[in-house]
Formats: sequence, structure tokens, C-alpha cells
Amino acid sequence: MNTTRRTFLAAAATVSVAGAANAGAPAAVSNYPKLVHHVFFWLKNPNSKEDLAKLLAGLRTLAKIETVRGVHFGVPASTEKRDVVDNSYSASEILFFDDTAGQKVYQDHPIHKKFVEDCSHLWERVVVYDAISA
Amino acid sequence: MNTTRRTFLAAAATVSVAGAANAGAPAAVSNYPKLVHHVFFWLKNPNSKEDLAKLLAGLRTLAKIETVRGVHFGVPASTEKRDVVDNSYSASEILFFDDTAGQKVYQDHPIHKKFVEDCSHLWERVVVYDAISA
Repeated sequence: MNTTRRTFLAAAATVSVAGAANAGAPAAVSNYPKLVHHVFFWLKNPNSKEDLAKLLAGLRTLAKIETVRGVHFGVPASTEKRDVVDNSYSASEILFFDDTAGQKVYQDHPIHKKFVEDCSHLWERVVVYDAISA
Repeated sequence: MNTTRRTFLAAAATVSVAGAANAGAPAAVSNYPKLVHHVFFWLKNPNSKEDLAKLLAGLRTLAKIETVRGVHFGVPASTEKRDVVDNSYSASEILFFDDTAGQKVYQDHPIHKKFVEDCSHLWERVVVYDAISA
């Protein structure tokens, strides 16, 4: 077991098992804070490395918001191409929160508003998925 | 700073800063393994709590695959309804891997194949997003 795996199992120990569906399932522990906010961005200029860099730099500022418990910023991975895989987006933003209240603080936060103000001209489409541990 | 936040900052220390776009940005460290595999499922019977429980139980078995570094299984959160938010799905599966090779091991793993065999009759649509840290 490597250091990263140990760290994630340690993190799992801080999160309680949620919901009756978990009963009897040892793998039912979520390793992460309960609320995940996943946003996909499609750039107006998908081939512009400069626009992508601007967007990613803007996204990184969101990590400073106090209710954010974890972040992952990315681009499409070079995994196998399959019909079910959508790799058409330009950038991916994952933020973890403890709960919906934490996500609301982020949504209304000046840092988030500044990000939208500075970067929204770069994208033509955004899709948001909010999921809560189950 | 609470325990959860400390744990994630500790996790961040195990992941190297990736890419030139990070230069000079202290919030540029990804707290998680580099590759995120996010799958959304739409059930054939979206109102069936039994089918949802079966799907979630199947998803939890995936955490046992040896290249999986972290998991989050969820359902739509009760965050604010906005045009950009898609809350039409039934279940969300997030798996973190160190790299695309780790994701490929999962993709071809007997536990994953058994999950598809046992549960694919439950869903009518799946969308997969694979993102790599940037």
C-alpha cells in the first residue's frame, strides 16, 4: 500500500457511512467529503492553449474559498475512446464540500464571482453536476 | 482548520504540481490522484428505490479494484436549481486513479465486468467523463 492510498483510507475514516444502502458493504465508505460539485467547460476557442491556461488559472483561485475541502482541475484524459465517453469538453473542475451549505457559500463567494466575471467570456457552454454521497 | 481539511492538505503534499499553467499559483496543487473517472447513470426506472439500491451496491464493489485510489458514490444533491445544473441522473460514480494505466486495469477487471453483467439491465443511459490533472 503506497502513501497516497494510505492517506485516502485515513480520509475515509473521517467520513461516516451514509444511508441504509451501505448496510453490510465494507466498500461502502466514501473516501471524500459528501458533496461533489463537478463542472465541465467547453471553450469558445477549443484549440486555444492560451484560453485554456486562462481558464485553468481562474479555476485554481476557487481552491481558496474556505468551504472547499478538495479540488481536481483537469482536461480530457487519453483513456480508451468508447461511445459512452464524452471527451468533448475543454476543462473539468471538481470541488468537494462537506454539505450543500458549503457549496452555497462557494456559489455566492466573491472569489467565485470574480472567476465568472474574469473567465465567462472564454466558454460557450457549462454543465454542472452536484452529487451527494449515497 | 478541521481534521478533514488537514487530511486533504496532507494528501495534496503527496501529489506533485503538474504543468506550466500552475506556475506561481499556490492553489494549483491538486488534492487528488491525477486521473478522475466520473460516470453518470440514468436508471430505466428512475423512481425505483430498489433499483437505485442495487446499482449503488454494485458500484461499491468497484472500490475493491486494486488500482482505485479513491471513490465517491452519490445521487443528485439538493443544491440550487439552475439552468446549467443537470440533476436528471440517478447515480454518480467517481473513481480516482494514479494514471490512465490504472483506469485501464479497472476497465478490464473481473470485478468491473461482473458489475456490468449484474447491473447493466438497470440503466438506460451512461455518460463517462475521464479527466487528467492539468
